[in-house]
Amino acid sequence: MTSPDAPYKAIAARKKAAQNALIPHQWRITVPHPAPLSVLSIPSNSSILTPLEHEITSQHDATSLAAAIRSRTYTAHAVALAFCKRAAIAHQLTNCLTEIFFDDALVRAKFLDEEYARTSKTLGPLHGVPISLKDTFKVRGYDASIGIASLSENPAQENSLLVDVLLQQGAVLYCKTNVPQTLMALDSDNNVFGRVLNPCNRHVTAGGSSGGEGALIALRGSVLGVGTDIGGSIRIPAMCNGVYGVKPSRGRVPFAGQETGSRPGGAGIALNASAGPIATSLRDCELFLSAVAGAAPWERDSEVVYGGWEEQGTAGQEGKMLIGVLRSDRVIEPLPPVKKVLDETVQMLRSQGMEVVEIDAPALEECPSLVNEFFTMGGANYMFDLLEKTGEPLIEWLSLRLKRGKMIKMGGLVAIHAHKEALEAEMLKIWTDAKGRRIDAFICPVAPHPVPPIDRWNGVGYTSSFVLLDYPAGTLPIREFTEEDLHDERTGNSEPLGSWDEYNRKLWDKNTIDRRVYLNTTLSIQVVAPRLQERRLLQAMTIIDNVVKRREYPHARL
Amino acid sequence: MTSPDAPYKAIAARKKAAQNALIPHQWRITVPHPAPLSVLSIPSNSSILTPLEHEITSQHDATSLAAAIRSRTYTAHAVALAFCKRAAIAHQLTNCLTEIFFDDALVRAKFLDEEYARTSKTLGPLHGVPISLKDTFKVRGYDASIGIASLSENPAQENSLLVDVLLQQGAVLYCKTNVPQTLMALDSDNNVFGRVLNPCNRHVTAGGSSGGEGALIALRGSVLGVGTDIGGSIRIPAMCNGVYGVKPSRGRVPFAGQETGSRPGGAGIALNASAGPIATSLRDCELFLSAVAGAAPWERDSEVVYGGWEEQGTAGQEGKMLIGVLRSDRVIEPLPPVKKVLDETVQMLRSQGMEVVEIDAPALEECPSLVNEFFTMGGANYMFDLLEKTGEPLIEWLSLRLKRGKMIKMGGLVAIHAHKEALEAEMLKIWTDAKGRRIDAFICPVAPHPVPPIDRWNGVGYTSSFVLLDYPAGTLPIREFTEEDLHDERTGNSEPLGSWDEYNRKLWDKNTIDRRVYLNTTLSIQVVAPRLQERRLLQAMTIIDNVVKRREYPHARL
Repeated sequence: MTSPDAPYKAIAARKKAAQNALIPHQWRITVPHPAPLSVLSIPSNSSILTPLEHEITSQHDATSLAAAIRSRTYTAHAVALAFCKRAAIAHQLTNCLTEIFFDDALVRAKFLDEEYARTSKTLGPLHGVPISLKDTFKVRGYDASIGIASLSENPAQENSLLVDVLLQQGAVLYCKTNVPQTLMALDSDNNVFGRVLNPCNRHVTAGGSSGGEGALIALRGSVLGVGTDIGGSIRIPAMCNGVYGVKPSRGRVPFAGQETGSRPGGAGIALNASAGPIATSLRDCELFLSAVAGAAPWERDSEVVYGGWEEQGTAGQEGKMLIGVLRSDRVIEPLPPVKKVLDETVQMLRSQGMEVVEIDAPALEECPSLVNEFFTMGGANYMFDLLEKTGEPLIEWLSLRLKRGKMIKMGGLVAIHAHKEALEAEMLKIWTDAKGRRIDAFICPVAPHPVPPIDRWNGVGYTSSFVLLDYPAGTLPIREFTEEDLHDERTGNSEPLGSWDEYNRKLWDKNTIDRRVYLNTTLSIQVVAPRLQERRLLQAMTIIDNVVKRREYPHARL
Repeated sequence: MTSPDAPYKAIAARKKAAQNALIPHQWRITVPHPAPLSVLSIPSNSSILTPLEHEITSQHDATSLAAAIRSRTYTAHAVALAFCKRAAIAHQLTNCLTEIFFDDALVRAKFLDEEYARTSKTLGPLHGVPISLKDTFKVRGYDASIGIASLSENPAQENSLLVDVLLQQGAVLYCKTNVPQTLMALDSDNNVFGRVLNPCNRHVTAGGSSGGEGALIALRGSVLGVGTDIGGSIRIPAMCNGVYGVKPSRGRVPFAGQETGSRPGGAGIALNASAGPIATSLRDCELFLSAVAGAAPWERDSEVVYGGWEEQGTAGQEGKMLIGVLRSDRVIEPLPPVKKVLDETVQMLRSQGMEVVEIDAPALEECPSLVNEFFTMGGANYMFDLLEKTGEPLIEWLSLRLKRGKMIKMGGLVAIHAHKEALEAEMLKIWTDAKGRRIDAFICPVAPHPVPPIDRWNGVGYTSSFVLLDYPAGTLPIREFTEEDLHDERTGNSEPLGSWDEYNRKLWDKNTIDRRVYLNTTLSIQVVAPRLQERRLLQAMTIIDNVVKRREYPHARL
């Protein structure tokens, strides 16, 4: 089907060569061959990073880096250089980057240092903080190709609005990160840049669509990155790479001016992606969300909802918090280790005196298939047109799943919107417990399985349902998968709930998988709050994180 | 076309008879024949109201009524009875009501009095305040027929959510108000209840689609009512009847559970109506909006955006306010009295030391036709089906304008959404002046003409554009139309801007209209704020109102 001299090949070759040329020779590493299962320790052991750069990149999150720059412990330039180096190493290990603009970043950091020396004022709360961006964001002068040949070699004329907001708040931008072809896959693989590898365990997926962000942050080539999420694309790579990720509600973080590979106007009738942070700490997620809100983005993006950070809800009433636990979406039964880590979390919360109530949400059962109807309503024709321009084939995983389809008819469109409205209304009930008390947030799985082997993600209902419902939701890493977890067996129903559930069981069935693949992965949970209450979500996540990790951040308020 | 024994006629006859039976004999008036031009003084001169009832209905707004009930100056029952009587009189004069539930209201008021006596606590900020509702709201046990025979004699099983919210906050509900057939006309006329008359001037329109509310409130048969607005349906009847009206942004006031005569799911892809107050004072509009927000309606309506009243924006920075003035939408040039009252307002603001800057918004020119595309995208087939069930014809005005059409195709739908997004983005620029300062709100006409003769409203661009853009906007009555206004002549372009503008000129051309029809009408302006900043709008409206009326409300903060 694809000609051997299809134009996309030459484009991809040029893009990769150009990308490669942007990694200075002195930052090049020799990737061990065969590669070790985990490459997490390689950056620290490499001689490319000075001891100071090792300290900067290993021992800080964005919040403490911002503080260290403010207190003149580090210069923004030293921080930027350290992260450029470490991102270059991370990229060589996992193929996590797309566009590289280290030189711009160093110039920018120098400017920030000079301004700070001159005025003793920071530009904003992100002064000097290096932030990595998913490839969908446009940065003037660089491609936003999202791994599609026909969108390559076409530098952006304008910044995405969020890019301007981050710059205004003082950030240093230095690289963009890899994604799946079409953005609608859970493994970040495409014909231009190739596949992102999971730095924790090269046999499992790095996730997607913000997979490059996940891998880069796990390797601390970045401590704060921006992803986008329409089915789970922030929360899934956060889980795969053992870091934090928060998907806000639609309209909370500016989304304007991104390359989404879809036609204008579609967003008005479809489900909408939202942009949010992926980070090594929860307080960095809060730093990102509060810095964005502090820039009054609703004045520049008509889709952004009015409301500062302090106006995004509060968890807990009279100092007490009520957490719900949702153990199944009734579509795919979580596998034993997923059930177990959720239960462990409940036990830890209860042992600290917190009340946790069981939640059942029958309406969730209808969400995944409805989400699918939304995702397929355009028939993917715009995307196929983009690919065909350069003779580019679908990546293997998509080739088995995606076909040109017919655009939905108006009657069908109205029907799926009516169904969505009905489910939204139904789901509101879950926020009140049997005693009539407000549930501040609930916990549930991110996925019904642990981090699976490459190209074997199964079902996105646990994440995509909260895009349909527009609930802010985040991934909270809990603990490593252990040898002991290998021995847990499924209990409960013998009959699968459906085809997705049946497939899911194969990810734990000794006849169809070697469970040891899950060693060297992180088990995470998801935390969910009501629509447009991102601060409530972060407060709830912080309390849970503190209990789970038995550590206290100074910003925890309850 | 319509059979002489079409079923709708018998339904309408039964509905009117049932309605008539709900007005007690002792509250009946003899409507003068021929009717005077204005009936505004009739309720006060009638012997049906006791002196106390006259005081209650004539000398208060909802805010002072709530205070008087709290201070035990009046009982809720006395207040309810006074407004039931006065609403009955208003209805006999203008045909402004649909459903009447005076008995329920009196029982409810008695209950509120007993509770207050027992507990010394009010139910909420609306304790004992009588509130009238547009017929679209469902009240358990009563029709929400919106003037359509096939929806009649089908009592609502559930309250609309807003009805529950108002009850929870202490309101007394006593009647629903008349609307146009289909809700998509600017004169409130239908085959079930007939036409609403303007109490100020029987030759001009009472407006629509919340026309019954407008007339009822002008006659003080209510001081606080709830309308809905998708093209101007709160702001237009407020203008026609010389009262205040505020259309919030979508998602601010619960809209769930209303009868809109359209199929479920359509709201997800169309322009959306929003519900808001029509009142005799601005502080009552604020009372309504803050009481609704105080009930956390986002917990019960998934379309409601999170955010309390204090989280809905602020006008003025460092105590100074910057107001814009938009004099034309480039589609219809306002007629001389409309231009004049806008200019007078600017002069009054400037004379009080306020800065007013000129605004030009070229994007507005594209809004009215785009709104039309949204309004007609469903082809009105659902509505025609509803009418045909009982052989009901269109009202005359609509019969010249509305036809069954084809539903828009998906390509067209995506295109109009893309156009909308582009206009929204473009329009954001108007909120910053040439010096880079924030414009707090802007003033502009409500319509390009004064209150016109019955069935002659021309163009809704000045109101519908702010539904498309989702800006909160309100009507502010400025002054009476005077003899002097009759002598102003059009200046400027000799060529009309287009067919709407050409038609508009006929409303001021001595060859096509007797301008004296505009005597006994009120000239109003519109005030507009950015999306979801209702508090900012109300603060700006209050300042302007204070300057214009030279009166101070204690709640004005700037």
